[in-house]
Amino acid sequence: MSHNSFGHLFRVTTWGESHGPALGCVVDGCPPNIRLTAEEVQVWLDKRRPGQGKFVTQRQEPDAVKILSGVFADDRTDGQVTTGTPISMMIENVDQRSRDYSEIAQAFRPGHADYAYFAKYGVRDYRGGGRASARETAARVAAGAVARKILDGVTIRGAVVQIGPHAIDRSRFDWDQTTENPFWCPDPAMVSVWEEHLEMVRKSGSSTGAIVEVEATGVPAGWGAPIYGKLDAELAGALMSINAAKGVEVGAGFASAAFSGEENADEMRMGNDGPMFLSNSAGGILGGISTGQSVVARVAFKPTSSILSLRQSINEAGDDIDLRTKGRHDPCVGLRAVPVVEAMTACVLADAFLRHRAQTGGGAHLPGKVADR
Amino acid sequence: MSHNSFGHLFRVTTWGESHGPALGCVVDGCPPNIRLTAEEVQVWLDKRRPGQGKFVTQRQEPDAVKILSGVFADDRTDGQVTTGTPISMMIENVDQRSRDYSEIAQAFRPGHADYAYFAKYGVRDYRGGGRASARETAARVAAGAVARKILDGVTIRGAVVQIGPHAIDRSRFDWDQTTENPFWCPDPAMVSVWEEHLEMVRKSGSSTGAIVEVEATGVPAGWGAPIYGKLDAELAGALMSINAAKGVEVGAGFASAAFSGEENADEMRMGNDGPMFLSNSAGGILGGISTGQSVVARVAFKPTSSILSLRQSINEAGDDIDLRTKGRHDPCVGLRAVPVVEAMTACVLADAFLRHRAQTGGGAHLPGKVADR
Amino acid sequence: MSHNSFGHLFRVTTWGESHGPALGCVVDGCPPNIRLTAEEVQVWLDKRRPGQGKFVTQRQEPDAVKILSGVFADDRTDGQVTTGTPISMMIENVDQRSRDYSEIAQAFRPGHADYAYFAKYGVRDYRGGGRASARETAARVAAGAVARKILDGVTIRGAVVQIGPHAIDRSRFDWDQTTENPFWCPDPAMVSVWEEHLEMVRKSGSSTGAIVEVEATGVPAGWGAPIYGKLDAELAGALMSINAAKGVEVGAGFASAAFSGEENADEMRMGNDGPMFLSNSAGGILGGISTGQSVVARVAFKPTSSILSLRQSINEAGDDIDLRTKGRHDPCVGLRAVPVVEAMTACVLADAFLRHRAQTGGGAHLPGKVADR
Amino acid sequence: MSHNSFGHLFRVTTWGESHGPALGCVVDGCPPNIRLTAEEVQVWLDKRRPGQGKFVTQRQEPDAVKILSGVFADDRTDGQVTTGTPISMMIENVDQRSRDYSEIAQAFRPGHADYAYFAKYGVRDYRGGGRASARETAARVAAGAVARKILDGVTIRGAVVQIGPHAIDRSRFDWDQTTENPFWCPDPAMVSVWEEHLEMVRKSGSSTGAIVEVEATGVPAGWGAPIYGKLDAELAGALMSINAAKGVEVGAGFASAAFSGEENADEMRMGNDGPMFLSNSAGGILGGISTGQSVVARVAFKPTSSILSLRQSINEAGDDIDLRTKGRHDPCVGLRAVPVVEAMTACVLADAFLRHRAQTGGGAHLPGKVADR
Repeated sequence: MSHNSFGHLFRVTTWGESHGPALGCVVDGCPPNIRLTAEEVQVWLDKRRPGQGKFVTQRQEPDAVKILSGVFADDRTDGQVTTGTPISMMIENVDQRSRDYSEIAQAFRPGHADYAYFAKYGVRDYRGGGRASARETAARVAAGAVARKILDGVTIRGAVVQIGPHAIDRSRFDWDQTTENPFWCPDPAMVSVWEEHLEMVRKSGSSTGAIVEVEATGVPAGWGAPIYGKLDAELAGALMSINAAKGVEVGAGFASAAFSGEENADEMRMGNDGPMFLSNSAGGILGGISTGQSVVARVAFKPTSSILSLRQSINEAGDDIDLRTKGRHDPCVGLRAVPVVEAMTACVLADAFLRHRAQTGGGAHLPGKVADR
Repeated sequence: MSHNSFGHLFRVTTWGESHGPALGCVVDGCPPNIRLTAEEVQVWLDKRRPGQGKFVTQRQEPDAVKILSGVFADDRTDGQVTTGTPISMMIENVDQRSRDYSEIAQAFRPGHADYAYFAKYGVRDYRGGGRASARETAARVAAGAVARKILDGVTIRGAVVQIGPHAIDRSRFDWDQTTENPFWCPDPAMVSVWEEHLEMVRKSGSSTGAIVEVEATGVPAGWGAPIYGKLDAELAGALMSINAAKGVEVGAGFASAAFSGEENADEMRMGNDGPMFLSNSAGGILGGISTGQSVVARVAFKPTSSILSLRQSINEAGDDIDLRTKGRHDPCVGLRAVPVVEAMTACVLADAFLRHRAQTGGGAHLPGKVADR
Repeated sequence: MSHNSFGHLFRVTTWGESHGPALGCVVDGCPPNIRLTAEEVQVWLDKRRPGQGKFVTQRQEPDAVKILSGVFADDRTDGQVTTGTPISMMIENVDQRSRDYSEIAQAFRPGHADYAYFAKYGVRDYRGGGRASARETAARVAAGAVARKILDGVTIRGAVVQIGPHAIDRSRFDWDQTTENPFWCPDPAMVSVWEEHLEMVRKSGSSTGAIVEVEATGVPAGWGAPIYGKLDAELAGALMSINAAKGVEVGAGFASAAFSGEENADEMRMGNDGPMFLSNSAGGILGGISTGQSVVARVAFKPTSSILSLRQSINEAGDDIDLRTKGRHDPCVGLRAVPVVEAMTACVLADAFLRHRAQTGGGAHLPGKVADR
Repeated sequence: MSHNSFGHLFRVTTWGESHGPALGCVVDGCPPNIRLTAEEVQVWLDKRRPGQGKFVTQRQEPDAVKILSGVFADDRTDGQVTTGTPISMMIENVDQRSRDYSEIAQAFRPGHADYAYFAKYGVRDYRGGGRASARETAARVAAGAVARKILDGVTIRGAVVQIGPHAIDRSRFDWDQTTENPFWCPDPAMVSVWEEHLEMVRKSGSSTGAIVEVEATGVPAGWGAPIYGKLDAELAGALMSINAAKGVEVGAGFASAAFSGEENADEMRMGNDGPMFLSNSAGGILGGISTGQSVVARVAFKPTSSILSLRQSINEAGDDIDLRTKGRHDPCVGLRAVPVVEAMTACVLADAFLRHRAQTGGGAHLPGKVADR
């Protein structure tokens, strides 16, 4: 319910501003006796970390996470484990570059949340975007790292499938490629195109949008809860909450609007390992419940709003102004978003797992095994 | 939290199956002293009602709503008004056609929720799709009717902007046209194209997808709550929870992935009536908070999964089967979805209004009016 | 969150006013495949039903419950079972005696919720107390009947342990006696004392308070969730929400304020059937988590506020008035509360069971069985 | 919903263990533009701080609070103010005395949460009680300090009204006395009695229970939300969640069980300043809604379970053991609880205020002012 929390049973609350002393999250509801160390969380944070290439913000943040509660180790535990109590994680801000904010303190940067925060609250921490900064997503990634630990057998991975007008060729989609280039690109032939596009965008002080795809394999049938806790509804809400997200689709998504019924409905057959779908237009979800197929979603990200062109705007005093957004920024925020999309997906799935276990005891009823009934 | 409820302060809980005695909803948290009669709710239900044309299901349901609680009238009230207590509304099912379900009782219809419900629960009410039936959306429309009553000055309207492969020409977009044809079509030139397409689809026993657009005008700046209660995140979750929805986008949505930063960020100027945006790529929402522009979203609906072609599937016993989904159905479920999309938007906005009032007292801080601060 | 719902995973939403057409509840989150019929729910409602003796209100309500959704039966289910979807139950009001409300329509009856509802909402359904009427508790009892069905091995029973100044002698406490007299009295020697007291109260048009005790046996260790979801905190909130409740205590309760540490802390020993406590000052809960002992709570109920004496009050117009509360009422609302206290306890325990299963998989780690770890 | 959070709109999440690096809380939903500094929070923490007298634990903790987010100051704000974003507060543990825990690592101390945590989670941080330690209440006090800031015109204060068997004489109740002695005692004649009792308890290595009373004056009529969000139900749940609490009562509480209807129902008259009650058996709440009278509640605390006597217990291996609980502890935990009871009351009221404002716009409908309707 609260504004800065998400999840029902696997519940994440985040806090912190871009230029405050620190940011962090509290993860509540995590099952006990799960191995968890700061190093394991750090692995995922390092993937999201700024300052790692010329196409992402040059802000230098180590993003070193500390676990302040909820874990315990003694000679009888399997290393450091969760205790079932809230896991508080904190990341200190170290590169809040000291600068003069007088120019933007009263101005509303176009496309940013500045005006909306002002209108709502009448006060805002304008330094680096304050609470609306994408730095907040570090806390999501930390929470996602915990979520992954309780998702035994589930693999979650993300890829960028479009940057600007350049979409990948899906016939060349290869997950292994995503770790071989700085763009999470699954299509090797697209890498140089994107590099050129991003170089052009960066040089011109502009920015570009992108589409990120996420896939979760190994999700068993039965997760998700009709009607308003549908797995796809929860995913849509969680993914749309990411900074700069403007659209979310599951499975065939918007393309399914042009489908015929025959193209859309995935047929089934019994395979050697149980029920089998012959296609995956559904994106692994029917009626809001996972079917055992891979869960597939895509998120559209708008271009970073910080660009160097002179733009028309207004300020708090109600004056027309023209401003240029200087400062460190990502030309393509979608690139930075991949670990965040993965993390949100992990959190939604962990929550769905716990909710499913609560109502049904866990497990799935599989055809041909009527004894389960 | 519960699976069949949505909203935080304007809280809607729905219940009922397609072939049970009734369906309904409980709306909790509604402000008191709002005029509300069953007739006012009925107006919206009548727009969603089946049996109204050859392109929608022939099931005959009057969908007559009864208000069972939460309203009161005496000689001192302004007609019948809400009292602040839960509003229970009920719609009796009258056309649960008596038929033989033996064929589908154990079969999983491709594209339907049958398999997922079975896997999750091990039992399901297969008559007419049970809880997964689109009849559930009548309860959403009733709740939406209440939501509209508390949204003074806000107008919410929907249109179909694509059916199958045929998208409207946005340069001809005219809201007034949407009430002039049976397709909620805002582009008069598209009506005959869609009619022909739907006729073809209907005759062939197939179905087709669609995209619905919704616009809310008059939403003041300041509604929505960062970070996880963002107005667009709430909208995305609510709209994706509608039967057959596969994608949601806000403002420029997926198109913004191809935008440059200059194309994306809406510029501002002070107008005579206050702050003014020069474009609306954002869809009226920045940083998860409304800006005072029109809130605009689109939802992609997959084709109805009930089609007459013989399809491969399996049954509860784990046998391969081939089946044809007979029965009454909509060839384009997207057509029926328009009032539902409107209703969900109304509920999300009503909830955002109450949450905003809770935290801030309501109202917006407008530039140039520093005294408000 | 919403005002008229309680529980987290076993979630109950109630609706309805004393003199509206009906009242009811929606129970969401119930596990599937649990046998459930209206007859089983009716058993508990019949225990709460008014019109059953001279010491309870003479309003004649059959309180016949209908289950409108969430259950299903076919030749493969074990009778009628839950499906995991929301269970909507409705009870029609039939004895909303037609009368003239002009006298109380604008008056605030002392001790009633009249003034508070008016101050909060500015409008209220004054007929029979509207939403504040104890008739609402019928919906709680219906929900409690469902909760009991999922609490395998748990027995919940209530007793009245004090009426007016007359407390039972605990050395004579005998649960079997509670069904042998109309007062749920576990002390046979107290029955005639209470009868005499109630007769005196009834004749004088006055009313009297009472204390109800509830015990749940068979609750396994491990239910309840620190810190703010403590089992005793949840119980306290749920029981205090019952009409006329003014106090709640667990285990030794208020008496423990006078205890020494030695008197308070229950010692343990290993018994033949596992861990064993040598006393139960804790009331079966330590640190907010059940210990496997009986859960014991008590609720204090104030006297019914409807009495025949002339009382000083004011009305909506702000005039001083003197009024007498006529109408049908219980001289001791505590008597009617026993099934309600039991029902709320059942709902809290069912919710705790599901929450425990969600986070831990269910079960308890018992000393001496380190393999469980 | 989550286990370590409370409140709906004024939402507090706490984290931390007794012997971890730190503890803290995140307060979400706080209105913007409220002056808030760490110093203001510290004032309340200092009242709860251990190591301040011979009757409280000798653990030395400065309990210095840091505000890590949610506040902002520039030359246009009224000092440092809240921004409406989550307020994260942290208190570092500095006196986690290094000691040997081998004796209690596997033992269950009678009356403590040790056994319950083990049974639930199968693992526990036994150092100083881990999450179950009363150190957690520091985070509540910090949250309560924020709550007080938004409760304009409301004064919340607590007193101890009974220690062991020694209850105060209410005819001598004087709030001013509570700050004049180390026992929050409002009855000057009782101070020496308690001192003697506590000295005896301390010397014998035993402990004693207590009852704390809290009063909130200035609460306007209309706060609280029927039925399950009743103000007294919320208070009962919040207060019962405090460590060692065993009972909660509102107004006349358990005493009202012995009342007659005439003694119970508070009469009303119009006073010069509006509606006036002639007594306050209700404790300021009717039908779950505040009436404008003082809100009054009492909480019973059991004696500290850590005592020096040899006690029977068991250990994780399932062996019978006898143990003595050494270490620093409070002989009367009720003494330390006063600031915590106040803080929880403040949080509940702040939440009720925001919820009331959400549904109704705030304010109260007062008799004689029909124009308000």
